[in-house]
Amino acid sequence: MLVDAALVVEDGRVAWLGTERDAPAADTRRDLGGRAVLPAFVDSHTHLVFAGDRAGEFAARIAGQPYDGGGIASTVAATRAADDEELRALLSQRVAELRGQGTATFEIKSGYGLDVDQESRLLRLAGEVTTETTFLGAHVVPSGVGRAEYVDLVTGPMLAACAPYARWIDVFCEPASPHAFDADEARAVLSAGREAGLGLRVHGNQLAPGPGVQLAVDLGAASVDHCTYLTDADVDALAGSDTVATLLPGVEFSTGHPYPDARRLVDAGVTVALATDCNPGTSYTSSMPFVIALAVRELGLTPTEAVAAATAGAARALRRDDVGRIAVGGPALLTVLDAPSHLHLAYRPGVPLARPLPVAHSGA
Amino acid sequence: MLVDAALVVEDGRVAWLGTERDAPAADTRRDLGGRAVLPAFVDSHTHLVFAGDRAGEFAARIAGQPYDGGGIASTVAATRAADDEELRALLSQRVAELRGQGTATFEIKSGYGLDVDQESRLLRLAGEVTTETTFLGAHVVPSGVGRAEYVDLVTGPMLAACAPYARWIDVFCEPASPHAFDADEARAVLSAGREAGLGLRVHGNQLAPGPGVQLAVDLGAASVDHCTYLTDADVDALAGSDTVATLLPGVEFSTGHPYPDARRLVDAGVTVALATDCNPGTSYTSSMPFVIALAVRELGLTPTEAVAAATAGAARALRRDDVGRIAVGGPALLTVLDAPSHLHLAYRPGVPLARPLPVAHSGA
Repeated sequence: MLVDAALVVEDGRVAWLGTERDAPAADTRRDLGGRAVLPAFVDSHTHLVFAGDRAGEFAARIAGQPYDGGGIASTVAATRAADDEELRALLSQRVAELRGQGTATFEIKSGYGLDVDQESRLLRLAGEVTTETTFLGAHVVPSGVGRAEYVDLVTGPMLAACAPYARWIDVFCEPASPHAFDADEARAVLSAGREAGLGLRVHGNQLAPGPGVQLAVDLGAASVDHCTYLTDADVDALAGSDTVATLLPGVEFSTGHPYPDARRLVDAGVTVALATDCNPGTSYTSSMPFVIALAVRELGLTPTEAVAAATAGAARALRRDDVGRIAVGGPALLTVLDAPSHLHLAYRPGVPLARPLPVAHSGA
Repeated sequence: MLVDAALVVEDGRVAWLGTERDAPAADTRRDLGGRAVLPAFVDSHTHLVFAGDRAGEFAARIAGQPYDGGGIASTVAATRAADDEELRALLSQRVAELRGQGTATFEIKSGYGLDVDQESRLLRLAGEVTTETTFLGAHVVPSGVGRAEYVDLVTGPMLAACAPYARWIDVFCEPASPHAFDADEARAVLSAGREAGLGLRVHGNQLAPGPGVQLAVDLGAASVDHCTYLTDADVDALAGSDTVATLLPGVEFSTGHPYPDARRLVDAGVTVALATDCNPGTSYTSSMPFVIALAVRELGLTPTEAVAAATAGAARALRRDDVGRIAVGGPALLTVLDAPSHLHLAYRPGVPLARPLPVAHSGA
């Protein structure tokens, strides 16, 4: 952390970084009045392309109805029924909402289409707003389709149609859910994705202990996401790997489930990322500041660790070294806080302190 | 709740309320695009007049340092050292922050002055921005002053100097804290305040079971705030009274203490209010939407109950029947959500959905 810091931006990139009294001359100077500047947040796990509203399901779950992943079907139906323009408008609103809260880089998964045309359509639309697109045909087994048949579809024609639009492939590996995929199915999906040139991600260990983490580590996935129920062997495996543990405490806030233990992971040497999991069923927050505050209250991270997990950690989960940090030569993706330090993101929960720092571009 | 609702505003007051197809003609029509409109939030418990920053203390407490109310002294020192203009600027920023998140009516306590001149100064400044001013000389016993001597000061010259600027008197009745006041001291403070024509409020049962609730009910206080540790007798006393139980879950979020049980109170027939307790030590949030989301996640309220507690319930805690609801003839203090229903305040935690609905004033 730099105090009394200054930076020089040229053509959208950081050209100089240091303390204010050493700052070189610049064409335009802007005084931020002692506000803290951070690397823009990286949200490495979202499901932003969808239609429909599940506020009623949320209210019912709060009143006691259990969650097992089955509600995804209602979003699938609404998403399939929406045309491209409708989905684009919804996506664009959501992207504006993320950006308005200080997030500059974000991943988007498919997974509400669940057939060849719909999944590739969702990825095409996601690709209009981010390079971090993830094929999640293996989100749940759609109703009326056999499990084996669906895995064949995902690893065959659906993958072929989707791979051109995707950087990543992901699978909801959760044998505890009747809708999700077991270890063998998940391995088949990920292996096919790797063959097609995609990077690997896993949803795992969300609802119960399970094979997701070990599978992610075995296959060299960039990230395994959720990680609520971990054995010591899972933690050891993560610590000895390049796989990031991405924690999504917005889910536990909204579902009432127990929170994952970030402290245990960090103490074991695991790289931890934080993300919103922005989706209409289990975590309809788009706020990285809220996720940071939760990580400090509930996951055992210090404010500094939480901010690192929401920036550099999440960048690592996307295998990106150009974002999630402020470095000379890197892109000027900056977030400014209406506060004097990054501590205030946890100290002032719920307050919209973070916003993008617009950077003037010289030339065109 | 009205669906497809419309309302007519004239001279800052609600002139008509109903469904859109029945709406009368109006000079100007504004379509909110299906957004939900709520009564503006009422924040019935804040400590907005202060100087200084305690983010470092927050970080230390998260790392394990206990809270007993002693940190208030650092805010007292910084506040005493700030001149009126500095305090006005800080207060004005905070009021703008509250309003920007949909709060229109808010209470402000003194309590960071702790001598005659400083307490009356803080109330004078608070009175520049709200009619709901509360004299909280009995916040803590300042260091270097004897307890009995300080109670005499608060109930004597300090009260005389402060009463002209205050609507309410409040006391931190918490025998478990060495800095706060016991039952006899609190009764003396409240009785003197009542003699001086002030309404009564109590901070009670925050850190341990204690006499605060019973005292508040005995003396007919409008509200007893915190209510984390309640006996069955406390709940029964509240249920048989006009005293509102004001819950402040931002405090428990920030301190890591257990949350109060709103469900138990509502089920017993107690009127519950939600407020931020916005203060630099234990709850530096200004966000009523965040408090509503916490109340649903942690306090056992439904989304509808939580919104009611943050509007009508909090109005009741201030003995106001003109705010916290939308009624024909009442002031048009309205909050609009970037969402189709009030459920979204809990369904979309951390997202800045709420903002004031500006109302055009005809005439001057």
